Amino acid sequence: MIGIIGTGLVGSGWAIVFARAGCEVAMYDAAPGAAAQARVVIGQQLEDLVAAGLLEDAAAALARIRVATSLAECLAGAVYAQESVLERADVKRQLFSEIDAVIEPQTIVGSSSSGIPASVFTGHVGCRSRCLIAHPVNPPYLVKVVELVPAPWTAPETMAQVRALMQRVGQAPVSMTREIDGFILNRLQAMLLKEAWQLVHDGVASVEDVDLTISEGLGMRWSFMGPFETIDLNAPDGVADYAQRFGGLLHGIAESRRAYATWDEGLVGEVERQRRERLAAGELNARRAWRDRRLMALTRHKQEVETQP
Amino acid sequence: MIGIIGTGLVGSGWAIVFARAGCEVAMYDAAPGAAAQARVVIGQQLEDLVAAGLLEDAAAALARIRVATSLAECLAGAVYAQESVLERADVKRQLFSEIDAVIEPQTIVGSSSSGIPASVFTGHVGCRSRCLIAHPVNPPYLVKVVELVPAPWTAPETMAQVRALMQRVGQAPVSMTREIDGFILNRLQAMLLKEAWQLVHDGVASVEDVDLTISEGLGMRWSFMGPFETIDLNAPDGVADYAQRFGGLLHGIAESRRAYATWDEGLVGEVERQRRERLAAGELNARRAWRDRRLMALTRHKQEVETQP
Repeated sequence: MIGIIGTGLVGSGWAIVFARAGCEVAMYDAAPGAAAQARVVIGQQLEDLVAAGLLEDAAAALARIRVATSLAECLAGAVYAQESVLERADVKRQLFSEIDAVIEPQTIVGSSSSGIPASVFTGHVGCRSRCLIAHPVNPPYLVKVVELVPAPWTAPETMAQVRALMQRVGQAPVSMTREIDGFILNRLQAMLLKEAWQLVHDGVASVEDVDLTISEGLGMRWSFMGPFETIDLNAPDGVADYAQRFGGLLHGIAESRRAYATWDEGLVGEVERQRRERLAAGELNARRAWRDRRLMALTRHKQEVETQP
Repeated sequence: MIGIIGTGLVGSGWAIVFARAGCEVAMYDAAPGAAAQARVVIGQQLEDLVAAGLLEDAAAALARIRVATSLAECLAGAVYAQESVLERADVKRQLFSEIDAVIEPQTIVGSSSSGIPASVFTGHVGCRSRCLIAHPVNPPYLVKVVELVPAPWTAPETMAQVRALMQRVGQAPVSMTREIDGFILNRLQAMLLKEAWQLVHDGVASVEDVDLTISEGLGMRWSFMGPFETIDLNAPDGVADYAQRFGGLLHGIAESRRAYATWDEGLVGEVERQRRERLAAGELNARRAWRDRRLMALTRHKQEVETQP
């Protein structure tokens, strides 16, 4: 049994992940009626997955998701609970007090927090050794990565058990040894984005052309290998060979940036202007639907390729 | 008519790009017999493309590629020539002198140079306003991006004509306004790699888990959208809204790295050790073949999705 606490976009996505994998799921939201409403939306999302060839039986998955009317009911019998409430330290801190009051001794609690580390809001509770960050990318039923980040008091067995659970339900858990700003995904994104914005700031290339460098270049390999495997295969004798051949060059490039321009009004305005030329503000939602269809098609493609002999 | 100068891995890949698109191609290599040998390998690569569903008629494409026995013959009647010889300034400088001696007034010459800018080896020739960098990713017939980098004396019409040609043959040209170390692709890669190596250096996560953060996370979106479009769709009102919400956070993460560890023996050894645990040295070539099959399948997938209504 899995408990889902908070049934917004993120919590609903998690409910799909676990129900799709065969787990019984109980959903709870402090706002009256919110969980029942979320279950209706989930039903539609499950149908979309069926239409995309990513799920066989939407009704069976939905039948495994039930609405709990209290936090205690949501957590009763749970081996794991995923917390996805508002990203605010005081809100999470208060919630973990409430969780602590009703939690059973076997239950582990993962937080979907994308920025606030668990040490900020779990230090005061008795169950803190069974608390951690389990940060997803949206929507988690299409993008597999989950960052597992321990607080200083998170037990090693807690990390190991959640890693095993996430793998069992088809996610791709990434285990960090300690808290660090932005975790891994947003750190890697931040470093690439800073350079991308700087190239536009310096007038080296357009927003669209910087995007093409990734989407028709590096992003191809990175969608099925990571950056380390990419360079491991890009030198005859592997990654140490690559480091010897190109380490100096890459280090030099990275060191060549002494400072980055802030994203001030002028720069943000320029990037916004170029993006709106390509995509009018009124088209943003249609483009998000396109992105989700592309993600579904890519997920299906990866499944097909990875299950080939 | 397209001239291909230098028929190693990169030059052969370019021959496929142009012949596949219906261009007549003449290939020249200074090493006797090399071009004829390359044409045999190209024949096999064209068959692989047919097998992957990426090409209809290998024989017709191959028939458009002929071997030239001199540089003059290779360039005779060419609208464009792609130079892909050894990545060494003196070698390229000498070659551009030879090109200059036989080039016709309409021919533009692009260099596949991945690091040496055109200003280093084209300043001394009469045709220098018709010379530029056209840097591909390997193999160019699967990965579309081509970085177009002008020397200070490259004519704007040269840039415009090569951009149009590359689009016509199905590539994704990226136009830079000036030379900059690493061009765009390797700059973006360098920034992300430096952080990735640092995370392993600091013991925050394993090589494998850093890779998963990209391949099952950011790399999914980045394989069909660039980093700008990704964030444009990740805030309700687009990229300016995103900058307001998350700019400070990302800037803070980027600024939090004051210095990077050098890739010394200890760090390189650790990354190499972790990679060899996942993939033995003897398996590198088989994994490269796997990568190429994955790239072909992904290319096919993108074609199918992008041609859907």
